[in-house]
Amino acid sequence: MHDAVEVILAKRDGHGLSDSQIDWVVDAYTKGDVADEQMSALAMAILLNGMDRREISRWTAAMIASGERMDFGALSCPTADKHSTGGVGDKITLPLAPLVAACGVAVPQLSGRGLGHTGGTLDKLESIPGWRAALSNDEMMAQLESVGAVICAAGDGLAPADKKLYALRDVTGTVEAIPLIASSIMSKKIAEGTGALVLDVKVGSGAFMKDLGRAQELAETMVALGTDAGVHTVALLTDMSTPLGHTAGNACEVAESVDVLAGGGPADVVELTLALAREMLAGAGRSDVDPAEVLASGRAMDAWKEMIRAQGGDPDAPLPTARHTHDLVAPASGTLTRLDAMAVGMAAWRLGAGRARKEDPVQAGAGVVWHARPGDAVTEGQPLLTLHTDDEARFERALASLDGGFDIESEAAYEATPLVLGRVAP
Amino acid sequence: MHDAVEVILAKRDGHGLSDSQIDWVVDAYTKGDVADEQMSALAMAILLNGMDRREISRWTAAMIASGERMDFGALSCPTADKHSTGGVGDKITLPLAPLVAACGVAVPQLSGRGLGHTGGTLDKLESIPGWRAALSNDEMMAQLESVGAVICAAGDGLAPADKKLYALRDVTGTVEAIPLIASSIMSKKIAEGTGALVLDVKVGSGAFMKDLGRAQELAETMVALGTDAGVHTVALLTDMSTPLGHTAGNACEVAESVDVLAGGGPADVVELTLALAREMLAGAGRSDVDPAEVLASGRAMDAWKEMIRAQGGDPDAPLPTARHTHDLVAPASGTLTRLDAMAVGMAAWRLGAGRARKEDPVQAGAGVVWHARPGDAVTEGQPLLTLHTDDEARFERALASLDGGFDIESEAAYEATPLVLGRVAP
Repeated sequence: MHDAVEVILAKRDGHGLSDSQIDWVVDAYTKGDVADEQMSALAMAILLNGMDRREISRWTAAMIASGERMDFGALSCPTADKHSTGGVGDKITLPLAPLVAACGVAVPQLSGRGLGHTGGTLDKLESIPGWRAALSNDEMMAQLESVGAVICAAGDGLAPADKKLYALRDVTGTVEAIPLIASSIMSKKIAEGTGALVLDVKVGSGAFMKDLGRAQELAETMVALGTDAGVHTVALLTDMSTPLGHTAGNACEVAESVDVLAGGGPADVVELTLALAREMLAGAGRSDVDPAEVLASGRAMDAWKEMIRAQGGDPDAPLPTARHTHDLVAPASGTLTRLDAMAVGMAAWRLGAGRARKEDPVQAGAGVVWHARPGDAVTEGQPLLTLHTDDEARFERALASLDGGFDIESEAAYEATPLVLGRVAP
Repeated sequence: MHDAVEVILAKRDGHGLSDSQIDWVVDAYTKGDVADEQMSALAMAILLNGMDRREISRWTAAMIASGERMDFGALSCPTADKHSTGGVGDKITLPLAPLVAACGVAVPQLSGRGLGHTGGTLDKLESIPGWRAALSNDEMMAQLESVGAVICAAGDGLAPADKKLYALRDVTGTVEAIPLIASSIMSKKIAEGTGALVLDVKVGSGAFMKDLGRAQELAETMVALGTDAGVHTVALLTDMSTPLGHTAGNACEVAESVDVLAGGGPADVVELTLALAREMLAGAGRSDVDPAEVLASGRAMDAWKEMIRAQGGDPDAPLPTARHTHDLVAPASGTLTRLDAMAVGMAAWRLGAGRARKEDPVQAGAGVVWHARPGDAVTEGQPLLTLHTDDEARFERALASLDGGFDIESEAAYEATPLVLGRVAP
């Protein structure tokens, strides 16, 4: 048997935790036998002294073992899922899930709500009249079989240890530990039961990971965890210094996603959707299908509509709009050389698209639409960004967060950075 | 204004905490505005990333500011105090306080009860019939003026932040941080209001600090803290690989102390008592007085009797004895080359002289008496140690802790180690 102080001292003094210590401490913490003040001291020791691959794999397995594990083995087709570490304007899940389903691979996408400047997939979908995020396991399974794609809320039964530990880390300065970030994400994704997993690890000002080195380390750690757990896992490192597409918010991102499914939409959103779809298909053994062809055929749009209808939504209903808009005009003519993802994300959040506390509501119509992307020519006085909100009082703070958030240069030799910065495979 | 996560992140990321961050976090923790799980994460970050001299001084000042601070400025003579980091057979406070008082320097000694293998000064004195440890501040002041020496329990009013933090560190693996150990000890000693302070930092198997380097670091840190707070502070580093004197327990240590005051007693106890007395006298500006002369004159014994009587005790009453004794005999003839302080301390603790939980009682008569010290010749079959307890069932576990706790060698060239290993002055 173990006790909490023994486990804390081992990690504090730089030793590896044994399998049995890890199993015990995660289980005892979930049950309340290890106190919050003990787990937070251990989390800080893990943050500062690290964990090796065996320890992180075992820690992840112990978090999975704290709850139920789903199993899609009975489905008639393979499964693949995608997880993004969070970015501004990141609506990729919306076109991606129906696209991959239309390619013959089922997508069981358990998503969350947004907190802070990065939006939540469920918040975006809830702007569709009638759509509901909560499904039972049986409903999820039935929809996967009939439609091929589900985007719904993760139940409380998956990795409850992670839920408790995440809330603790949030108030104790121990969020930024790569072993804990990686095991938190992967315990939920592995418990969810997908056969293949593609990770979209965001890098840049609007992302949790600001530099490529840390993002690479996180991606490698997560790919190792998935591989150790028997899930075919690949990660793409993608740029989040510029926000994705032309919109950040809820309803506006749904509209942009529907544009992509209709064969249009912003080039970067299309590019990333196809890149992730190819990885998901390859992971599920279906490299033979070309998602670009399926997208062009309209079958992905059909799958989208079926998916929305299956969860009570009306895909043809008008989307909500905000009561007030405000244009921010270009202060000069030239080339837009920078549009900062964090600045745009903060503005959208302050306009009401996101929440400060998890019990806050969000505004369906709130958000930011930008009319130019880096590399585009702009003319002094043209609308550069349009802010949307139901509450006019929010414009001031939203505009303040955009202060210094973009550059227009007259004689700029603008050099585009690639969207996909790297790939990590087992 | 500050918040807990900001302070944790600063220390976690290796930065110094500002004065204002330290003041805020100690005060907010004392009031309950910073949660235990936040303070334990901060304590772990301090343990692993350290604090510099300014930070530790400020942290100590903030802990002092959490409660009352005593002031002996109204006394007609200077004050000096001694603190030991804890050892086995360490009864030095008992002869030392009346000796220094007899030399003309008042000794306000606030002491504690023992927990674990090192004894507590109050536990030892409570074996004297009638003696009581609890005094009001007014009683303490009056006794210091009339007798010159007080050994009593520290009130709850001194450094309450330390009390709360110490209990937290105990269960979160954060006891062994030198900044936290040093500020814990020094906040109480500085709040106690002494003019001069001598620290006896123990080194060796029976001490909290097992190696000289760590002990030196702790001593230097505490001397710096005392100096920064305007208290004349010196530390001696002294050996605790061998227990002090010939006894470890409660009543038996009182008897040994009285022997010293009567002009006899073990040489090492006399040596350390005089060394610490000289430092206390020097710190209080009374280097002109020779404590050896005062000890020989019998005036220290007079002060002892007055001090015991002033707190309700009868210094001439017979001391309690244990109901059962057991001799451990020498298994061979030769020279005793090692008597391990930790083994003896554990045996005395298991016999009932100490406590496992702070609410446990102790036995006044329990303890260990050893009949030889390292360097002494012993004969096979002679009593080497005598164990005392009221509860015969305790002999077995006490004997087990002495297993391997001493060496007898036939052709040993025994080399005595010095008792005082070093000295740290500002």
